Amino acid sequence: MTTCTVTVEELTELAQSALIGAGVADADAADIADVLIAADLFGIHTHGVQRIPQYLDRVRLGGVNPRPTIRTKAPAPSVRLIDGDNGIGPLIGRRALRDALAACRPTGIGVAFVKGSNHFGPVMPYLYEATQQGFAAIIASNATTTIAPWGGKATKLGNNPLGWGVPAGANDPILFDVALSVVARAKIRAAAAAGAKIPTTWATDAAGIPTDDPDEALAGFLLPIAGHKGYGLSVMVDLFAGVLSGASYLDRISSWSTHPQVPQDLGHFILVIDTAVLCSEDELSQRIADFRDRLLATPAADPSSPVRLPGQLEMQNRHRQQREGVDIELADVEKLRQLSERRPTLRGVQ
Amino acid sequence: MTTCTVTVEELTELAQSALIGAGVADADAADIADVLIAADLFGIHTHGVQRIPQYLDRVRLGGVNPRPTIRTKAPAPSVRLIDGDNGIGPLIGRRALRDALAACRPTGIGVAFVKGSNHFGPVMPYLYEATQQGFAAIIASNATTTIAPWGGKATKLGNNPLGWGVPAGANDPILFDVALSVVARAKIRAAAAAGAKIPTTWATDAAGIPTDDPDEALAGFLLPIAGHKGYGLSVMVDLFAGVLSGASYLDRISSWSTHPQVPQDLGHFILVIDTAVLCSEDELSQRIADFRDRLLATPAADPSSPVRLPGQLEMQNRHRQQREGVDIELADVEKLRQLSERRPTLRGVQ
Repeated sequence: MTTCTVTVEELTELAQSALIGAGVADADAADIADVLIAADLFGIHTHGVQRIPQYLDRVRLGGVNPRPTIRTKAPAPSVRLIDGDNGIGPLIGRRALRDALAACRPTGIGVAFVKGSNHFGPVMPYLYEATQQGFAAIIASNATTTIAPWGGKATKLGNNPLGWGVPAGANDPILFDVALSVVARAKIRAAAAAGAKIPTTWATDAAGIPTDDPDEALAGFLLPIAGHKGYGLSVMVDLFAGVLSGASYLDRISSWSTHPQVPQDLGHFILVIDTAVLCSEDELSQRIADFRDRLLATPAADPSSPVRLPGQLEMQNRHRQQREGVDIELADVEKLRQLSERRPTLRGVQ
Repeated sequence: MTTCTVTVEELTELAQSALIGAGVADADAADIADVLIAADLFGIHTHGVQRIPQYLDRVRLGGVNPRPTIRTKAPAPSVRLIDGDNGIGPLIGRRALRDALAACRPTGIGVAFVKGSNHFGPVMPYLYEATQQGFAAIIASNATTTIAPWGGKATKLGNNPLGWGVPAGANDPILFDVALSVVARAKIRAAAAAGAKIPTTWATDAAGIPTDDPDEALAGFLLPIAGHKGYGLSVMVDLFAGVLSGASYLDRISSWSTHPQVPQDLGHFILVIDTAVLCSEDELSQRIADFRDRLLATPAADPSSPVRLPGQLEMQNRHRQQREGVDIELADVEKLRQLSERRPTLRGVQ
């Protein structure tokens, strides 16, 4: 695998251009590129611009709507219900975040429940955007099913990403973003390709029995984090993001990989709290700095591996790559370039 | 261990009577007893009325205030900041939940951040109360520190209980309540007493290395659920419940067991969402019934151990014990009886 380094501006132009080439409106392409490039900046490349070809494959197959009319209802002063009209996920995610922030300002807390959506990237870019404006956030989504319920042997739950974020004034926010499976299927596919065994904590075979054989695991089910506790958390995320939002849930969610032409109707849950109503920014900054310092002062069991805050590595990646450019696989850049070249002109790219 | 069965009414009278005997106001004793007996009804006896002697020990030592003046501020329409004045935890928890529910009604969502509190029992009784009124809830607390940060070797985090609940109309709500350590220290103490080894996933020794020796584990640190993911979640709960609330956090929290005379200044985070603004109760009931049925229809890996919903066992316990009485250790009843007998009269018991 060859990687290259591109500036944020170059990557933005490429990403927008590829999206616009597939029929996405200019402003929408800018929003989608922003979210995915934020993922790349954090170093979460599996959820960055490399997703664009996959998103656009689904657009071409009619599975995703490149020109959605996203509709927002306000059934109560601090609550928004959003229908994403089967648009590209990060577009819907960003609009919903902004709706939640707008709902929050007059009342101190706001929530957006989203239906009719698709894979919206990782949670961290949304957490980051909220915290940069002084909002604490809890954000989650349901997902294509890969996990069996605890003790079961059929896929019913997704890895249902869940994130929590807290702003810290001028300091880096604290951002936590996890998937609720122990590992992604990609990691098991890699082990299968390498002919390696996997830990029995990663997956079960088709009978629901934990296995160290990656091929059996790929025919079976991913295991949730933390056993029955992670299973329960995954259920609750699906209830909040899928059921309360009016979206699909459990195995009503169609798989983007096996049925890319079918709308998934994923659901998201976006909650934001205005920390400015809790205390002054100075006071919050001081409290979080004290929290950070006390935590990072913990002596390490292995001195070469110090204690870290959630999201600390990702924020370091962000700072470095904003200065030095984004490290990205050459093949991914090439794919974006090919998609961009299908366009007659580079409309809408600043 | 001998257990006995008492009616909810008998247990309520005993619990209230013990609390009032220690100087707790009648109405406050009723609230505290309600929360703890709800825990017993769910079968969570470790967090039920057996906690009363421990709470009252701290009252006698001056570590907890039996007559708090709980103060609530409303810095924004949907946000409440509550100072528990170092009262008994379940009293503060219940008042804060009711404040959050009141804040929620006009705007669709409400949040209470609580400081100056103590151990507030399990999360499930609060989730249940919220869901019975049609509110979805996310509730969490920080706690006495028992867990080392991931890769560290000093206690900085509590097991920070976290709960999510969703109402289901006339059906049982779905309630999820977990502690963020793999197990409680009590389980390791039991293994030590029995001379048994423990799984290496439960705890580390004092050097931060996972151990199967319960004595070394008791000299070391509990491990969080799900490795670094559970560590991150515990950090975020402490940030929301401890830092944003203005309470203590990390190792600023004093231990109730080693320093029972010192106020703990625990913090709680109570978020409620009015599901009535999202859709009709009928529609929600139908969606949740479909969710439940699809999940419970999952074939089991081991047919003797069917797939269950979060909180399903606890709701079954509740129904059974409301009919048949609460199964409780005789020694716990005796302790309450002794505490009750210190009172000259049984004021305030219905």
